[in-house]
Amino acid sequence: MKVVALAGGVGGAKLAYGLAQALPAGNLTVIVNTGDDFEFFGLKVSPDLDTVCYTLAGIANPKTGWGRADETWHTLEGLEELGAPDWFRLGDRDLATHLERTRRLKNGQKLHQVTRDFCRAWGVEVAVFPMSDDPVPTQVKTDEGMLPFQEYFVRERCRPRVSGFIFQGADKARPAPGVKESIQDADMVVICPSNPWVSVDPILAVSPIREWLQEKTVLAVSPIIGSRAVKGPAAKMFREMGIEPSAFAVAGHYGSLLSGFVIDEEDREQVEEIQSAAWGSVSVCDTNTWMETEEERVRLAREVLAFGKTLI
Amino acid sequence: MKVVALAGGVGGAKLAYGLAQALPAGNLTVIVNTGDDFEFFGLKVSPDLDTVCYTLAGIANPKTGWGRADETWHTLEGLEELGAPDWFRLGDRDLATHLERTRRLKNGQKLHQVTRDFCRAWGVEVAVFPMSDDPVPTQVKTDEGMLPFQEYFVRERCRPRVSGFIFQGADKARPAPGVKESIQDADMVVICPSNPWVSVDPILAVSPIREWLQEKTVLAVSPIIGSRAVKGPAAKMFREMGIEPSAFAVAGHYGSLLSGFVIDEEDREQVEEIQSAAWGSVSVCDTNTWMETEEERVRLAREVLAFGKTLI
Repeated sequence: MKVVALAGGVGGAKLAYGLAQALPAGNLTVIVNTGDDFEFFGLKVSPDLDTVCYTLAGIANPKTGWGRADETWHTLEGLEELGAPDWFRLGDRDLATHLERTRRLKNGQKLHQVTRDFCRAWGVEVAVFPMSDDPVPTQVKTDEGMLPFQEYFVRERCRPRVSGFIFQGADKARPAPGVKESIQDADMVVICPSNPWVSVDPILAVSPIREWLQEKTVLAVSPIIGSRAVKGPAAKMFREMGIEPSAFAVAGHYGSLLSGFVIDEEDREQVEEIQSAAWGSVSVCDTNTWMETEEERVRLAREVLAFGKTLI
Repeated sequence: MKVVALAGGVGGAKLAYGLAQALPAGNLTVIVNTGDDFEFFGLKVSPDLDTVCYTLAGIANPKTGWGRADETWHTLEGLEELGAPDWFRLGDRDLATHLERTRRLKNGQKLHQVTRDFCRAWGVEVAVFPMSDDPVPTQVKTDEGMLPFQEYFVRERCRPRVSGFIFQGADKARPAPGVKESIQDADMVVICPSNPWVSVDPILAVSPIREWLQEKTVLAVSPIIGSRAVKGPAAKMFREMGIEPSAFAVAGHYGSLLSGFVIDEEDREQVEEIQSAAWGSVSVCDTNTWMETEEERVRLAREVLAFGKTLI
């Protein structure tokens, strides 16, 4: 069974890790949001891409979920000493990734090639693709004006009230080479429990990824349990966009794209509501969607795959 | 007494440190070679400038003389993991300097302003100027072709045989703001025991610095003791340029620019030869010029200043 996973940051990376354990390496492709890419000190930083690759490689920081394990912060200390911008926390080991990616991109390599080479160096066996080699920087419309994503997310700690999102350049961006083939070959596409607004929507905005997905069996795992996001600002964003945050709201967000939807058992009472909603027929599976341990990631991945199989 | 010191890397930085201890802060200006500046991973690296500033700030690596104290190498480890270029050893703390300098230069600050701000942040009270805000990259003519300085010096470890040096752009470069005033105000200019070919000559190549110096009392400290350089490839360079390395050869290199010359007591027998050489009248002082400890730096600095006073 060939599977494509769409992933953003920490939550997406965790399920991608579980899927990578549950499937033979050749059967999984992970397509990652790059809408949160930005430049810092002239370095090309791809936070979601790195989180996914570090997690798959087993070298992610186990405490934060992002950045590298056994990280030190001596460069950051040096920057602080000089009064330099320090709102984005560059770890010493993590910096190597940005330095070498920047060097390679300047030398003409494409982002998907850099990602492939880095994965090889880190021992990642599953295929990981950025959604596009072209820049699609997410801009967040807020009550304090338009903010580039990382400034909203990290510098302002998601404090400003959002009223919309622009995926700048999405109209001209093309899916990275390999994305089309992997989707077309897939028996199932899994939208990981990533933020629908700023992790998954940017991927869907790169045309014609959404059209390709409409031909496939697509299932999503809800990043919202109860009315809270497991991590990050997804629930806050739903609320500020005028929608009560819930698993139901997430299913509604993806609408007719979904064949199946996986929610936490805590939200079991929403099953019927989701199955009978106006946007079409969607099967719902409720289970424990928390992924604290590596075992929980793999268990959830196996459950998602088993559920998906019933929908093909 | 106002003093200007011309300095390159480790040896120059040590004497500059001694002079900084021996003089009131407002009375010393250090003008530093930037011919060894280069770009690595898109970062603007100024090795000599950093060595001088780190040394003056007391944050230089005491073992190597260059780089920072308490340094770690986690970024470098990450780069090696990715098969990235690693011939220039970027320390984690040192990296902050390059990142922030690069950011500021891109934002339009000039190198002398960046240097001033960094010195302030590091608590350096003496004035430190790059020789120029304009790039003057030293190119080394070798039997293996022309090599940018750091590739010759670090990557090739000074192995290729040299036949000349080009200070690219020196004809168009202007002295950094502040250099003219500090030289004109100086009672004495001290050429530190730096490599004459690749640390001091680049400074002298930025017109009209040499002309300004011709009006002043200039003394130099020999970086060569016996037939060996205290550190680095100076002796090898003299030899490959067809000149037997010695204190006498260094004096001859600077020629009529010198009013005074400080040599090591080991070379005492060269005093008369230097004083009676064809290039003009130069007074010679012989003393212990080794600077292993901080005390030795200060002692030598005081001796150089006392000797210089007799020449004004």
